Amino acid sequence: MELSKNIKNNDIATAAKLITIIENNRNKAAGIIKDIFLHTGNAYIIGVTGSPGVGKSTLVGEMINIFRKKNLSVGVIAVDSSSPFSGGAILGDRIRMQKHESDSKGVFVRSMATRGNLGGLAKATRDATYIMDAMGRDIIIIETVGVGQVELDIVKLAYTSVVVLAPGMGDDIQAMTAGIMEIGDIFVVNKADHPGADDAEREIKYMLHIGMRKSDWEPEIIKTVAAKGSGIKEFVEKINKHKKYLEDNNLIDKKKYSQDQLIKLIKEKLELRIIKNENSQNIINDFVEKIAKREIDPYSAAENILKKLGLVNRS
Amino acid sequence: MELSKNIKNNDIATAAKLITIIENNRNKAAGIIKDIFLHTGNAYIIGVTGSPGVGKSTLVGEMINIFRKKNLSVGVIAVDSSSPFSGGAILGDRIRMQKHESDSKGVFVRSMATRGNLGGLAKATRDATYIMDAMGRDIIIIETVGVGQVELDIVKLAYTSVVVLAPGMGDDIQAMTAGIMEIGDIFVVNKADHPGADDAEREIKYMLHIGMRKSDWEPEIIKTVAAKGSGIKEFVEKINKHKKYLEDNNLIDKKKYSQDQLIKLIKEKLELRIIKNENSQNIINDFVEKIAKREIDPYSAAENILKKLGLVNRS
Repeated sequence: MELSKNIKNNDIATAAKLITIIENNRNKAAGIIKDIFLHTGNAYIIGVTGSPGVGKSTLVGEMINIFRKKNLSVGVIAVDSSSPFSGGAILGDRIRMQKHESDSKGVFVRSMATRGNLGGLAKATRDATYIMDAMGRDIIIIETVGVGQVELDIVKLAYTSVVVLAPGMGDDIQAMTAGIMEIGDIFVVNKADHPGADDAEREIKYMLHIGMRKSDWEPEIIKTVAAKGSGIKEFVEKINKHKKYLEDNNLIDKKKYSQDQLIKLIKEKLELRIIKNENSQNIINDFVEKIAKREIDPYSAAENILKKLGLVNRS
Repeated sequence: MELSKNIKNNDIATAAKLITIIENNRNKAAGIIKDIFLHTGNAYIIGVTGSPGVGKSTLVGEMINIFRKKNLSVGVIAVDSSSPFSGGAILGDRIRMQKHESDSKGVFVRSMATRGNLGGLAKATRDATYIMDAMGRDIIIIETVGVGQVELDIVKLAYTSVVVLAPGMGDDIQAMTAGIMEIGDIFVVNKADHPGADDAEREIKYMLHIGMRKSDWEPEIIKTVAAKGSGIKEFVEKINKHKKYLEDNNLIDKKKYSQDQLIKLIKEKLELRIIKNENSQNIINDFVEKIAKREIDPYSAAENILKKLGLVNRS
């Protein structure tokens, strides 16, 4: 297809158009991803997450500088689950405008927002990652604000996950325990020239100590002052160290695609079939009425519906 | 079946046993619900939700007093999504022990907890509601702590949803916007003898004003001091008013079973079939490897898998 040819030529206009389509039309998304997927799997995907105000954007800008000096091309996906606006001028775009405006072949920034649908945001972000990967970007940075369920889902797309914190956020660190602490491969204490940086580091160490991690990787903690460019080189070295760990342990393939992702997609497909279909809706509604009147129990109804929809094998 | 006979006789020992089974064994839950479901639909289900410390348990205790005076039997399901312990002595059980210990025919209290599985908690609570309904309880009160996604799912089981707040929780009220404000049919400002009760009421009114409600029901706000028993009678009258609204507008059947509930159950069934099955797991894992190597795209893989599992009709 025309699109997949263009995207392989690192065509930014095509990529931008495709991302807009996958955001607005989930039905078309499948076709697009089918078309480009076999050209993906070459980018290295880094997730950067943290609360507002910790200096994520500045840090990402500094990361980009280092990658560009190594002549690596970069794609940035800036995700804000609290914002209904996308494609526009939040977070990541600020970086582009400040520093990399003239370098569109090297740095492509795209913002993603909810459009009123959190689940859709995670899916659209996943697909936007494929598009940037197919474009041939060497590095993709997914930047997320906050630490809710959607952000966790999005962070899972990354091969290396970076959690950014700033001093004086003690409560925040504790609130993060649930998900993010288990996911972070590298913890950055940014604004390390502010009072309390050592406390923050200690708290992270403590949380990591009491938390449960499923991998052998010992999370790294590093202090940076992104606004002054200090600690950034060391930070990027930690990312490379983690990348090497994944490669040495044959874990890259698992990062490139997980069972979890495929199961989610299968569920998505089944859901589309069951819900977005007039025939199914009518069948379901008939049964809902019967259940409400206690003429049938929900489990028997569900079985009947699956049979009627041909979604059940005869075993 | 023996069980469904016993449960209809308001047999508390059987009910307690059944709830333990549905908590521990989701496979057996389907059989139990099938068995008893046609005896449900007679109870009136009230949800009571709010942060810790607002006095929910005291309020529920006072509600029970009023229902018992009218000779209505009551079932209480006390859900604590932050606790791994269930069946035991949290929240609701305190009420029983204090006031209604000798009245087990009239008041049956059961605590539910996560057991490390939030999704399972919502399902187990739903099924426990059916069991109490089949027992012949006239009123079922579902008490939930906190306002996360699980609590929202649980609150949806109720015909009338009560949100309890206390003065001095301004930030909490704002944090609630997302889900709970849209769900509450009645808002209780408990501890109304504390300073700030009027402010809390004003804030609720403001949040309701800016929020989006999908029903014609104008939420009621009422001030109580549960610890002194004041405002309770008026509060229960508001519940009856909401019940009458539902009846007059033919909305009770929709509360008794919703499309949303049935779709969830259908998805649950499909998920069980797809995931908890060695054959499926092997097929899925084969494809995950192929996808990671970019030999096939995820969408085509998902379609292939659904075909192989016989989950797709030939259209």
